[in-house]
Amino acid sequence: MLTNVEHIGIAVRDIAASNELFGKLLNALPYKTEKVESEGVSTSFFRVNQTKIELLEATSPDSPIAKFIEKKGEGIHHLAFEVDNIVTEMARLKDEGFTLLNEIPKRGADNKLVCFLHPKGTNGVLIELCQEINE
Amino acid sequence: MLTNVEHIGIAVRDIAASNELFGKLLNALPYKTEKVESEGVSTSFFRVNQTKIELLEATSPDSPIAKFIEKKGEGIHHLAFEVDNIVTEMARLKDEGFTLLNEIPKRGADNKLVCFLHPKGTNGVLIELCQEINE
Repeated sequence: MLTNVEHIGIAVRDIAASNELFGKLLNALPYKTEKVESEGVSTSFFRVNQTKIELLEATSPDSPIAKFIEKKGEGIHHLAFEVDNIVTEMARLKDEGFTLLNEIPKRGADNKLVCFLHPKGTNGVLIELCQEINE
Repeated sequence: MLTNVEHIGIAVRDIAASNELFGKLLNALPYKTEKVESEGVSTSFFRVNQTKIELLEATSPDSPIAKFIEKKGEGIHHLAFEVDNIVTEMARLKDEGFTLLNEIPKRGADNKLVCFLHPKGTNGVLIELCQEINE
């Protein structure tokens, strides 16, 4: 079950400048920054009620974020839903005809297991499922 | 103050097909559909916790949604934040250097007063401020 809009990921060229910009918009500072080496991104997080805004800057030219910006410019990159059980939900959505971009959950930012759905099957929206890791 | 991610607007070509698609994704039916003649759109709404997913189909070729899809394809069109006082917030953001696309709040879907910020000033993200109308 998809239980919450966990975050909205926004691809930016210069995360320091965008932290300032979104800081003004949201009247708050990012509460966390994190590098995810496996994805080639620097991230920062703002919280608005029960949803986060995640800014993403590429750390290398072959990062998915660099390619996204090259193709489409800055903007919303993905929409992430919290799920209660990522394995169950991945199986359900696969059965429903959605294409999973990773067949097993992988580790994402913010202490999460994540799976992405192919945007060709979701009206062009890159959708992430994520579940908090309890360690 | 921006108090919540009120909704995420997604531009689609065929709202009937997308209602089915997002119905499968969210395991729910749209709880509301609405035409907004002034914006040239048909909309449908799904609820996920405190945030809505708003699907938007153009009802005429000169609708902003038709133009968006023509230029960028289907996908996330805008990100809407609930505000406690839209007039105050519009003034604050204008002072902070953001560009308002409408200088006075206008009536949007779902019984809201809305204002859009120019995406050139917000990393390519079309941001909507919205406040529920109490009548």
